[in-house]
Amino acid sequence: MEQSPSDPLEGKNTFLPSIQCPGDLKKFRAEDLQGIADECRSFLIDVISENGGHFGSSLGVVELTVALHYVYDSPRDKFIWDVGHQAYIHKILTGRRDLMHTNRKYGGLAGFPKITESPHDAFGTGHASTSISAAAGMAAARDLSGGDEKIVAIIGDGSMTGGMAFEAMNHLGDIKSDVLVILNDNQMAIAPSTGGLKDYLVSISLNKTYNKVRKFIWDSISLLNNDLGDAAKNAVHKIEDGIKAALTPGAFFEALGFRYFGPIDGHNTDQLLKALREIRELPHPKLLHVITTKGKGFKPAEENQAKWHASSGGFDISTGKTLKKATSSPPPKFQEIFGRALTEIASDDPTVVGITAAMPSGTSLDIFQKTHPGRFYDVGIAEQHAVTFAAGMAVNGYKPVCAIYSTFLQRAYDQLIHDVALQKLPVVFALDRAGLVGEDGPTHHGAFDLSYLRPVPDMVVMAPKDAQELRDMLHTALAYGKGPVALRYPRGNASRSPLKPGFETLEIGRGEIVREGSSVAILALGTMVEHALQAAEFLESEGVGALVANMRFLKPVDTALVDSICGHFDSVVVVEENSVVGGLGSAVNDRVQEAGLSCRLLRLGLPDEFVTHGSMEELYRKLELDPETLGRKIKCFYEAGGEENSASSQSAIRTERLA
Amino acid sequence: MEQSPSDPLEGKNTFLPSIQCPGDLKKFRAEDLQGIADECRSFLIDVISENGGHFGSSLGVVELTVALHYVYDSPRDKFIWDVGHQAYIHKILTGRRDLMHTNRKYGGLAGFPKITESPHDAFGTGHASTSISAAAGMAAARDLSGGDEKIVAIIGDGSMTGGMAFEAMNHLGDIKSDVLVILNDNQMAIAPSTGGLKDYLVSISLNKTYNKVRKFIWDSISLLNNDLGDAAKNAVHKIEDGIKAALTPGAFFEALGFRYFGPIDGHNTDQLLKALREIRELPHPKLLHVITTKGKGFKPAEENQAKWHASSGGFDISTGKTLKKATSSPPPKFQEIFGRALTEIASDDPTVVGITAAMPSGTSLDIFQKTHPGRFYDVGIAEQHAVTFAAGMAVNGYKPVCAIYSTFLQRAYDQLIHDVALQKLPVVFALDRAGLVGEDGPTHHGAFDLSYLRPVPDMVVMAPKDAQELRDMLHTALAYGKGPVALRYPRGNASRSPLKPGFETLEIGRGEIVREGSSVAILALGTMVEHALQAAEFLESEGVGALVANMRFLKPVDTALVDSICGHFDSVVVVEENSVVGGLGSAVNDRVQEAGLSCRLLRLGLPDEFVTHGSMEELYRKLELDPETLGRKIKCFYEAGGEENSASSQSAIRTERLA
Repeated sequence: MEQSPSDPLEGKNTFLPSIQCPGDLKKFRAEDLQGIADECRSFLIDVISENGGHFGSSLGVVELTVALHYVYDSPRDKFIWDVGHQAYIHKILTGRRDLMHTNRKYGGLAGFPKITESPHDAFGTGHASTSISAAAGMAAARDLSGGDEKIVAIIGDGSMTGGMAFEAMNHLGDIKSDVLVILNDNQMAIAPSTGGLKDYLVSISLNKTYNKVRKFIWDSISLLNNDLGDAAKNAVHKIEDGIKAALTPGAFFEALGFRYFGPIDGHNTDQLLKALREIRELPHPKLLHVITTKGKGFKPAEENQAKWHASSGGFDISTGKTLKKATSSPPPKFQEIFGRALTEIASDDPTVVGITAAMPSGTSLDIFQKTHPGRFYDVGIAEQHAVTFAAGMAVNGYKPVCAIYSTFLQRAYDQLIHDVALQKLPVVFALDRAGLVGEDGPTHHGAFDLSYLRPVPDMVVMAPKDAQELRDMLHTALAYGKGPVALRYPRGNASRSPLKPGFETLEIGRGEIVREGSSVAILALGTMVEHALQAAEFLESEGVGALVANMRFLKPVDTALVDSICGHFDSVVVVEENSVVGGLGSAVNDRVQEAGLSCRLLRLGLPDEFVTHGSMEELYRKLELDPETLGRKIKCFYEAGGEENSASSQSAIRTERLA
Repeated sequence: MEQSPSDPLEGKNTFLPSIQCPGDLKKFRAEDLQGIADECRSFLIDVISENGGHFGSSLGVVELTVALHYVYDSPRDKFIWDVGHQAYIHKILTGRRDLMHTNRKYGGLAGFPKITESPHDAFGTGHASTSISAAAGMAAARDLSGGDEKIVAIIGDGSMTGGMAFEAMNHLGDIKSDVLVILNDNQMAIAPSTGGLKDYLVSISLNKTYNKVRKFIWDSISLLNNDLGDAAKNAVHKIEDGIKAALTPGAFFEALGFRYFGPIDGHNTDQLLKALREIRELPHPKLLHVITTKGKGFKPAEENQAKWHASSGGFDISTGKTLKKATSSPPPKFQEIFGRALTEIASDDPTVVGITAAMPSGTSLDIFQKTHPGRFYDVGIAEQHAVTFAAGMAVNGYKPVCAIYSTFLQRAYDQLIHDVALQKLPVVFALDRAGLVGEDGPTHHGAFDLSYLRPVPDMVVMAPKDAQELRDMLHTALAYGKGPVALRYPRGNASRSPLKPGFETLEIGRGEIVREGSSVAILALGTMVEHALQAAEFLESEGVGALVANMRFLKPVDTALVDSICGHFDSVVVVEENSVVGGLGSAVNDRVQEAGLSCRLLRLGLPDEFVTHGSMEELYRKLELDPETLGRKIKCFYEAGGEENSASSQSAIRTERLA
């Protein structure tokens, strides 16, 4: 990779300019590591202050990352960074420092580790709790092929609450492969982490009793040992083993077959080096418990960790204050509209409860939490449990709203089918981040929810065109009561139009015509209604009158509206912010086929491929879903239909007949 | 519910005839419980020997179930039976004894707890590891509404390896609700359970050291205590707390915030009563560790627990031998064809590995295990981990085959998308039990895999028409190497036709015409190819010539074949054993639309609803997918097309125009 023309490090740094790969790092003395860590931290703060990005978690692992690359030998040895928000220092040390300013930008570095980006990224991450499973698989592969490379999974205490982390540890305890799990314990995921395990970890790191107890027992045993005969000594040794196991502060991990080390100070390079070097050569699964501070070294981030989980850049690095003058307050985010509406509805209905899987601020369920703390549940990074927990509450008469990002609900697909839909339980799924999410890229785009929800029997699936409709749909979903409802809405800001007081109950399975037109019809859902309306303006200016329908429901799809429109128009366009495979386009097309209609259909949406990261504007343009390109494409489609109609009395193309 | 005319219990039993509900049970003395348990066990053996059903797990919890219903007050108090195989005794004691002979039959009792079947079935189960989540939800609901009913989840040590059980315990440890988790530890799920946790549980139940150590420490503390001043005593008390916590054999569960009790003998009604009565009134989450023997009281089942997990009935209750004379050995199951083919391929390719989530016999991966034990991985009931573990192995050059039932892969949908497909890793998913499964019913029908796999970018999805094609497809999938492949095949037996030696590589995305015909075309996938061929025979006899295409691939669908057939035929039928929403029918229809073809399409498959349990024959008939009904439906469809064509020059129906 090329170095950028003027190296911002020059003059300012002693070590970093000469570190292009982990091999360069190893040339320095151990005593220099803290200095190198300091430079990494300051470089990261500089870059993020200008360009934005995830932040707090990388600042927390600066020393750990430097120590890991010093002791281990990447890419031969493998690091797997759980979630991957915290891998920025890793990227800086593995030849990507000069590209850090392109981070999360279209065509630039990904915000997460990515196997196609660098051989040092051993496994791509993004969703939580995958790292130990991947490490176990890589270790099993190594063991089979007789290799001796080391494999290290670095996982936060938040991600440790995800069930698959437990599944992976349980399996590793069984196959006994050499894997080091580093538990990066900052008592935070994005929000403060929750759960019994957290209390346990806190008690390990804070409670001095453990150490006292240990000393007391060891002393007793030694005393005893000296005064006993051989048979008695053997008996005591057995007891000793039992005591050792029982008194280890990591008994939880030891129960799963791990050897536990720690806790150690994750900001002390000496402690880290010593521990890593000692542990490196031990075979079998082992866990090193490292205590870190999220946002370490950047005061504003240390003090408000949730706020500084990520930043959009443009702040003063000494104060954390935003540099740009706020012209006016931005319009509310869709998630805030949701959070406020839910709070309002719950004030009138004591059976409404809110459930999040460790994303109270990301889903704005924290708004609900403030007013209704007793009905707010943060279950940890545990979508599977969240959904079946909701089912349990629904069975007992409550109306749970599970606020989960579209991609994260993929984690609970079985629970949604097996525990909720099969029992027709009235659980409401509030799917935030449905459609493109921009800079977070393919791991986080909500590209599939319409497709994977449509085949689920008895599901109602809807998407609002704007903030007002989001309110009404949430109300409608909670009033429905006959089974599960999914309500998908996008990341980002709603428009600034004023909201009506109260709520309107929408008819289930009923769309609306939002613009009249006579040449071509556009059936749109959610975000794409606004794009379609803008495209229709363009079409109008080109002399093509476009009807726009806001379909509102994917399931049940409004068959009367589809029949009516597709029976009337020769050219019909369906547009959605979801994969073109299996979503609204397929639903409309299936209906067109069932009803025996003969219109030409153009199905637009996200392509049948994983979409890269970049700004929403860039991605919309690239995918031809921005209003302008949409308008032009629809015009072409409409005109081709006219030519076709005049060229042939048949409205459909016939391909070659069978020979 | 009505009693059956002649009560089989009469004369033979002392207690059971008078127990129609848990209230009746409570009228007996505690000393009678073992006698009641004995009668339940013997009734169950009788019923299963005649009618078949899941078996071993219910025999293991006879005493536990009797004790639970004696101490608790169902349906006010709630029992949630994880997986639910073990709930037969519960059904017997809650008014369904006289219907047990209808168990798993069409229109009869379900093989699992089902909320619509009885108020005593507090939550429907079927898939593993859901019970603690559901219990937590019900407990949270109770706490909100100020109730005081008790909630008990009964979960096996196998299900305890599922990540969501851990997620639920972690959350319960946080909200501290009163829930009793009974860990039914028989060291088996369907196969012997695996994982570090299992070893830990075994060490708790077998190792006497723990008890010795505990005694030693308690004694030392007491001694010490007597000789100390107050300050020192306080210090020692603190130490004592630490020691108590550390020396509890259930430290694993205590770490999650549970109070641990046990282990106790699950076949001793006195021990059970004592423990349950003591624990019942304690608030907060608690876990009772109960040691049981799967198949208890039926020697053949005790001795071969995996074999007797379920039985199809018709055996001698004293010997376990099958009563029916074996006329000839049945044809091999699809799963066996898979297991053997994989073993054969792996003998030539050392990079092929096999992964199961606790189903070595259910998937026939045990065949592979025998020949290639070093490349066989049983990860526990942990589908999420299984898939990302596979991804880890694939990243390091191996070719993992994940053998997972169709419905269970729903558990790993996110991992399949995020860890496998996004990284284009060559993991092969062998989806057993795709389509209907018969008696296990809606929790186990593989009704959705085609729909949920189709939107995943870069997936190849195929289904064989017979055993030979299953072999060739497995070979093709492993030879492909460019990304993930899913291969779905049904439960049950293949036909008896001889298999060719070696393997043929199929062209990806290419179907075949298996029968020529000129009137109507049938595009079929998997099991439905044979049904279509039989339907075509019927159509032939009615003077309607039907072409039958074996599509082989859902994705990429054979567009050339679709274009050619749909361009040639006016009437085309698509048939698949998957929901009609989003599977092959939608794929063909989407292609027909894209290519601008104008044939009439009839899309047949499983309905957009949850399908009940019953024999395969009954279900096929009910769903009109048996060859005969299929033939008749296709004839009607074909004839309607002819009428339509003569009635109108337009081949498509136009509905009402927009007003």
